[in-house]
Amino acid sequence: MTYCDQIIENAYVVTVDKDWHTYENGFLATRGNEIVGVGPMEQSRLFSATTRLDASGQILIPGFVNTHTHIAMAAFRGASEDVQDRLNRYIFPMERDLVRPELVYNSSLYCLAEMLLSGTTTFADMYYFEDEVAQAAQQAGLRAILGETVLGQPAPDAYEPNGGLTYARSFIRKWKGNDLVSPAIAPHAPYTVDEENLRRSAQLAREMDVPLLMHVAEMDHEHVRFSQSHGSVLRYLDTIGLLNERLIAAHMLYLDDEDIQRAKDRGVRVAHAPVSNAKSGRPICPAWRMMQAGVKLGLATDGPLSGNSMDIPSVLSLFPKLQKTREENREILTAKEAFRTATLGGAEVLGLETQIGSLEVGKKADFILIDGDDFNMQPIYDIYATLVYALKSHNVQHVYVNGRPLVKDRRIMSFNAEKVKIEMKNIRDTCRGYIAAINSR
Amino acid sequence: MTYCDQIIENAYVVTVDKDWHTYENGFLATRGNEIVGVGPMEQSRLFSATTRLDASGQILIPGFVNTHTHIAMAAFRGASEDVQDRLNRYIFPMERDLVRPELVYNSSLYCLAEMLLSGTTTFADMYYFEDEVAQAAQQAGLRAILGETVLGQPAPDAYEPNGGLTYARSFIRKWKGNDLVSPAIAPHAPYTVDEENLRRSAQLAREMDVPLLMHVAEMDHEHVRFSQSHGSVLRYLDTIGLLNERLIAAHMLYLDDEDIQRAKDRGVRVAHAPVSNAKSGRPICPAWRMMQAGVKLGLATDGPLSGNSMDIPSVLSLFPKLQKTREENREILTAKEAFRTATLGGAEVLGLETQIGSLEVGKKADFILIDGDDFNMQPIYDIYATLVYALKSHNVQHVYVNGRPLVKDRRIMSFNAEKVKIEMKNIRDTCRGYIAAINSR
Repeated sequence: MTYCDQIIENAYVVTVDKDWHTYENGFLATRGNEIVGVGPMEQSRLFSATTRLDASGQILIPGFVNTHTHIAMAAFRGASEDVQDRLNRYIFPMERDLVRPELVYNSSLYCLAEMLLSGTTTFADMYYFEDEVAQAAQQAGLRAILGETVLGQPAPDAYEPNGGLTYARSFIRKWKGNDLVSPAIAPHAPYTVDEENLRRSAQLAREMDVPLLMHVAEMDHEHVRFSQSHGSVLRYLDTIGLLNERLIAAHMLYLDDEDIQRAKDRGVRVAHAPVSNAKSGRPICPAWRMMQAGVKLGLATDGPLSGNSMDIPSVLSLFPKLQKTREENREILTAKEAFRTATLGGAEVLGLETQIGSLEVGKKADFILIDGDDFNMQPIYDIYATLVYALKSHNVQHVYVNGRPLVKDRRIMSFNAEKVKIEMKNIRDTCRGYIAAINSR
Repeated sequence: MTYCDQIIENAYVVTVDKDWHTYENGFLATRGNEIVGVGPMEQSRLFSATTRLDASGQILIPGFVNTHTHIAMAAFRGASEDVQDRLNRYIFPMERDLVRPELVYNSSLYCLAEMLLSGTTTFADMYYFEDEVAQAAQQAGLRAILGETVLGQPAPDAYEPNGGLTYARSFIRKWKGNDLVSPAIAPHAPYTVDEENLRRSAQLAREMDVPLLMHVAEMDHEHVRFSQSHGSVLRYLDTIGLLNERLIAAHMLYLDDEDIQRAKDRGVRVAHAPVSNAKSGRPICPAWRMMQAGVKLGLATDGPLSGNSMDIPSVLSLFPKLQKTREENREILTAKEAFRTATLGGAEVLGLETQIGSLEVGKKADFILIDGDDFNMQPIYDIYATLVYALKSHNVQHVYVNGRPLVKDRRIMSFNAEKVKIEMKNIRDTCRGYIAAINSR
């Protein structure tokens, strides 16, 4: 008899283990922050628990992993749609004039509510004042990889160009070793940070042993520029030593076959953000081709201004559809493969695959429970088809990280979410006039 | 002072009238099944009402219009994903062996619950035993255009090929003149119904003055066949007299510029189903180009087996993204234009634009209220961006058709939805073994 803290019983358990085990009537047992048992219900008799949760009608899956976000940008969601070059026309000016530590903290916490309510348990983020994001993540209780942004021009938290490097060093020192929050460095992009400061960023990542997050091959002008100078964006990055297993590259749209092979050979990991890319009118990412080549790939919402929704279920639903569209083949990228990408695949991208991403004994107790009886979910013939093509964010009912309930019955447990809503309305009132002024220019 | 039945007050009203009026603090007044007043709150003093509903924090918009569905197929949702030629391998056999009147009725009612809960107030459908669909729609209380399917092979409700023509004649007679349900005829597609029976379908539509619903230019083999014989699918249909203002054509994927102009010249209306098309790995529909040419176009989920979700919000969100992707231009198809397509645009496609699709005095009281304060909805800077890019189905709170509440606080009011859930589980248990048998072939 094994003693444990809690047993979730009678759930439809989807493990994402290497044999793809599912248990239509299954259980999960946790002790402390760990999974100590998972399997068919009859095996739950081997466990004795302090609490038992009956999860009849519910689907129990690993928490979703969101591999690329800018959560503090929730403050600006919907502010500048359907316009060209909004990075220079809207985003950089708004950030320069409006982004302050308090806005970053409150806006991050607000965004984390939306992410938790839609089942995300781990995320990667890059922004300014990343220490505020870390504090918000800590309070909300999610697992996070957080990168301070380095920008080759003055940034909200750095008057000098590339001042993020200095911020990053102390940020990384402060958070290194934290249980849930892992620090990183995040040079913005190959077209906004020069070669010298990209090299310095890579050097810092190596020195402090942290991941390097960056937007890569996202923009057409970036693609044109580095194709002319080096053959491609990836060839440029390889030349200057940035292509390696520390790099978590977001987007990766403009790639030829050689670039894909190079990404695989160098161990580059990819944060794929199909909703954001589509809304920006960009080419469809060769995500399936990267997966075929053996590149590790996870899903991402991107920031709230880019995708407008911070829920992985809607990204997961679009992901195989866009790949099938790109390849004009409905057979490629099955629901099962797509579902893995939103869970274990994302964990691999963030280097957390030994800790999270599947429901296995010894892994962290990061899991979510989904109402499988809602109208949009039934009938269920193929659980992966249901989870990929039918699941909506509101079907998520309970969310646990490290065995701790962060959402119960669709309510945030870890912080006062109603208070954060009020903060967001204050932020909106501050931003409104500013945004209207840009609009009228 | 104007007397009315109810006033919804303090809502953020989005009218979709020809001047795009919105009222951040607005009201809507209804009497019987009609809208008798809409405008800023101060004008509500001119009305005296039996009931007043405070809609603070809510967004009041026209109900969504879903222009192409097969709602009874909810029974088979998720049954055969990621496979080629599933129409012949799965769908036709399942329909032949499993589709009976009772399944059609119960499955339709189940599907209507999902549609109502996500804000659809009007839909067009084509299937077998369409009289059962009509009875379900009548009970659920939605507005509907319902077409009995004609198929050039034995169908679930017709032993003889094209037997749907006989069924359709009596079906149309029965429902013609009904307040909410309008009958139609629906030859399946140019590749499943021969020329003679397409002509007979068109003749019946003319004779009984009803719309003709059909899948058009959806399949690659259809495109190849009619390109060889007539230059294109649309040229073939034009040759045999099917291209006219009665035709509501679903999909319309394989079109050249001449086809688009032809569709415009003949007054063909288009049901655009981007989620379904993408999941099938088909080319992106030239929807924006059709709109530019002046073709009337509305949004559609397609059936539950094709799109897997029956909610218009997710279709609306994908629609401009895929068009921006297709044209590689983020500026085209603004949120405002996209939103019109899901409401008034859909009404135009179904020939109901004088009755529904916008909130204007004299139109039917078909409207929905959305929780604008949920985490995924705020902040709001551009109401159309919020409604198109941020809205999720669960934000829909109340749904009215003809002034009658069909959903209140996210609960179905017009029928016993819990009972229908149980019926769906019985259907699932019946279908499971059958589907497993096809899978193992």
